[in-house]
Amino acid sequence: MAQMIIDMTDLEFALFDQFRIDRLQEFEPFADYNRKTIEMVVREARRLAVREILPTSKIGDTRGCRFENGNVLLPPEFKLVWELLSKGEWLVPEADPARGGQGMPRSVALAARDYFNGANMALTMIAGLSHGAAHVIETFGTALQKKLYLKKIISGEWAVSMQITESESGSDLGRINTLAEPGIDGTYRISGAKVFITGGDHNLTDNIIHLVLARVKGAPEGSRGLSLFLVPGIHVDESGLLGRKNGLTCTGIEEKMGLHGSPTCSMALGSSGNCIGTLLGDENKGLAVMFSMMNDARLLVGSQGHACASSAYLYALEYAKTRKQGALPGKAGARPDMESVAIIEHPDVKRMLLTMKCYTQGIRSILLYIARCQDKARVIPEKRQEYQDLVDILIPVGKGYVTDRALEVCDMAIQVFGGYGYTSEYPVEQIYRDARITTIYEGTNGIQSLDLVLRKLTLRNGRLFNALIRRMEQTIETADCEPALSGIAMGFEILVADLKDTALRLSSMDDTIETDLEKRSVSAAFLHITGDVVLGWMMLWRAVAPSGS
Amino acid sequence: MAQMIIDMTDLEFALFDQFRIDRLQEFEPFADYNRKTIEMVVREARRLAVREILPTSKIGDTRGCRFENGNVLLPPEFKLVWELLSKGEWLVPEADPARGGQGMPRSVALAARDYFNGANMALTMIAGLSHGAAHVIETFGTALQKKLYLKKIISGEWAVSMQITESESGSDLGRINTLAEPGIDGTYRISGAKVFITGGDHNLTDNIIHLVLARVKGAPEGSRGLSLFLVPGIHVDESGLLGRKNGLTCTGIEEKMGLHGSPTCSMALGSSGNCIGTLLGDENKGLAVMFSMMNDARLLVGSQGHACASSAYLYALEYAKTRKQGALPGKAGARPDMESVAIIEHPDVKRMLLTMKCYTQGIRSILLYIARCQDKARVIPEKRQEYQDLVDILIPVGKGYVTDRALEVCDMAIQVFGGYGYTSEYPVEQIYRDARITTIYEGTNGIQSLDLVLRKLTLRNGRLFNALIRRMEQTIETADCEPALSGIAMGFEILVADLKDTALRLSSMDDTIETDLEKRSVSAAFLHITGDVVLGWMMLWRAVAPSGS
Repeated sequence: MAQMIIDMTDLEFALFDQFRIDRLQEFEPFADYNRKTIEMVVREARRLAVREILPTSKIGDTRGCRFENGNVLLPPEFKLVWELLSKGEWLVPEADPARGGQGMPRSVALAARDYFNGANMALTMIAGLSHGAAHVIETFGTALQKKLYLKKIISGEWAVSMQITESESGSDLGRINTLAEPGIDGTYRISGAKVFITGGDHNLTDNIIHLVLARVKGAPEGSRGLSLFLVPGIHVDESGLLGRKNGLTCTGIEEKMGLHGSPTCSMALGSSGNCIGTLLGDENKGLAVMFSMMNDARLLVGSQGHACASSAYLYALEYAKTRKQGALPGKAGARPDMESVAIIEHPDVKRMLLTMKCYTQGIRSILLYIARCQDKARVIPEKRQEYQDLVDILIPVGKGYVTDRALEVCDMAIQVFGGYGYTSEYPVEQIYRDARITTIYEGTNGIQSLDLVLRKLTLRNGRLFNALIRRMEQTIETADCEPALSGIAMGFEILVADLKDTALRLSSMDDTIETDLEKRSVSAAFLHITGDVVLGWMMLWRAVAPSGS
Repeated sequence: MAQMIIDMTDLEFALFDQFRIDRLQEFEPFADYNRKTIEMVVREARRLAVREILPTSKIGDTRGCRFENGNVLLPPEFKLVWELLSKGEWLVPEADPARGGQGMPRSVALAARDYFNGANMALTMIAGLSHGAAHVIETFGTALQKKLYLKKIISGEWAVSMQITESESGSDLGRINTLAEPGIDGTYRISGAKVFITGGDHNLTDNIIHLVLARVKGAPEGSRGLSLFLVPGIHVDESGLLGRKNGLTCTGIEEKMGLHGSPTCSMALGSSGNCIGTLLGDENKGLAVMFSMMNDARLLVGSQGHACASSAYLYALEYAKTRKQGALPGKAGARPDMESVAIIEHPDVKRMLLTMKCYTQGIRSILLYIARCQDKARVIPEKRQEYQDLVDILIPVGKGYVTDRALEVCDMAIQVFGGYGYTSEYPVEQIYRDARITTIYEGTNGIQSLDLVLRKLTLRNGRLFNALIRRMEQTIETADCEPALSGIAMGFEILVADLKDTALRLSSMDDTIETDLEKRSVSAAFLHITGDVVLGWMMLWRAVAPSGS
């Protein structure tokens, strides 16, 4: 049978031959994750994704979510899937087993989540927020917040939403107007309106915990005055019992190009009764807290892009192997009385499929590498900062570059299917429509490129980019020792040197208004060449695996 | 007020300053088309498109067409638009006034049709077929066929469909299985099944005239055995009166990614009563006849791509001028207490808009140039072949390259709108979904690239491509005399020389199986570099206009 969503052979090659994820078991928190366990985990995720979840994807697209009497209703099949994910402890498998998680390395959890994203991106978008929220509450929450919310979120009893955007504050968070007025009991009364809130309301769970970015009354203007609040949809008393409804309501959902199964809500806070929340982290430090969640969300979006690309590629591959059309000289079909060739034989179709394969495998490795860096940053204290540097520099690549390439792959899949690809008879047009949002949300790819050029390139004295270059040079050295690869390694070395020069030129520019504008105008191009080189690095690493870095 | 669909200033610049379309009035058939008349024609088309047709586009997308009790029903608003187009003689304005047309140059008709395509591509797709069909009947039809069908088609009393594709014959026409059995009265009884038939059935007109590609019983296999048939949906007697229904029926319509207002029909021929047609052109010469119609259809698709790109660009431009978001150093918004800048100020947004503008203007000129060559081929007998050569070599560019770039423009428009671009609140996501088919139908862009590399490059001893290169060299010479442009002209000269070399290398390759496969594998790349150079030529020509070639 054809591979679905992700080619398991290639995934296992990346996990074990390229990245040796099973070596993480040397570190105590991951001691249980030997190769056999990881294989079992990923195969179980695949089984669940392909058998149980995938059939709900088209249901989400065609029936979508409805907004009725102030409530958002998802298709009933979605609730069953949510329950499967909850029971299987798949929502936040990275969490501490003491909190209801599986203590799973992020790299392994990513591989599992990729399958879920490919099986139903709309649902996984909601589910995927639980991990980031749990992480933020674990890191910044008070003892009471942890006690009341963590287990419920990790178990999936309650879901999560992330409320940042307002109609005049999309890419520009400094303009957020939602207000938080401190009460005498330490809580805050929140009022404002949010838009584009994924999962702001739905009927999957009894409660939804909202993380709301707002401005405490009297706080400084701009992003320095933002604070993050934990706002339950239904109040929770100190013993954990659900009480009355909090004063935030969904006022409508967006009609969208795709992702019809994911409710994109407009929210009114405090206009129908008091909306009460508690501070998460310090006052006026909301953006930093939010960003630790946003980085997770960005990688989740990269994973969505990858899952869509990978699914689309496998569908196109299967179709191209079975669809017969046209003749080729010297092959079957050269004469009218002979059968046509499978379209995969046509060089132009092969070109598309090989491009798709290269991008798909490359971005798969990029994302797994970032997750592995996160794992290593956690378990190797003396190298924590080094790995964190790599994560930070690669986040814009893992979101911006990855989703741009992923969308190209989805687009090519439609082209391989020809006229059939444009019809709803085949899944690729839905995959494209779903994937189209990935280059936009959680910071448009333009914003990602600015993050790379204006912020990450110069952060910590430019150390981040240098760390990345050094890693690439190590792989080149390894490849250089392999006779079959030394030519490629030499060619690649030139690219890496060029990239290094370009980065140096950008980061050492004078700090004037003109140079700032200049940097902004080339940022998208720089993100793309950085991404292409990183992808090339991943492919070279694959070529030297298992003897590589 | 913002420009809609197409920027009139730029269109008039291309028509009059770049291409001097008004000079066609020197030739008798176009004697009425002085500048004033052309301006009036185009402005009237714009008025009709923007005021009357554009509002129906979203209706087509949301309500779409329905298939009920064996009939295809379009939204009632579509029927009103069809009547407006009929009454205004907009369906086949190129036709001879004696037949009910306006004797309009194709270049002028194209400019008008671009507006209609941008206003409602789904409807214009059906309407656009009338022109090609009228042209084919005029050229190949018998006196009776002309008498019975031409005026009715040109007036819009009857519509047209083009029935080529079968489920196993998409890109591969040689496999067509629909059978035509000659009767004793000179008619043919046709049986088979067609798919992906645009406008195969609808309720816009009382009758639909189908041009059906089929194989006469006993004809050779492959494309050499195909004949074209004229098959009325409802029989027409020799006095022109409608009789009983012919034996072809729509069996269903496709659910598609976009173009919901255009019924894509599956057709059964001869399974419910006899399906009777008459031969159009010679037996077994159907493909050649069809291709003269197909070239028109391909340019129509290019025009659709252009219209979508142009509309999307203008929407994005308008949005970027009014949407305020984010700060820039040294500008408004640099401090939190200052207002944000319009997003058009952001260099990365400006980069997208400038790219969109360049592609849109360039493909506009490419298409107008092809139409002008068609006009000149018609009215300058001694240069007929020279202009036909240019048309033939540029068809794959005008369809394949143009729609690839157009789709990129539509995609960037979504990105400029950010999250709002993904919602149905703004028109750009529909424009993208509608435009997505243009790289597929009437020969996928892969097929276009093969047409260029395997056929057009070597046709008539490679004369076609040389004619194109010579034209470019003339523009370079003109630009070289302008001090402000000579640097650009020199740079462009190198590109043209490189393109010429590449084309020569491709066309002079040995005729072996290996080289054939090699050519096929680089054909898409060659189409793109050819298109980029042609687009560059158009931009250079624009720069030297009105003193250019």
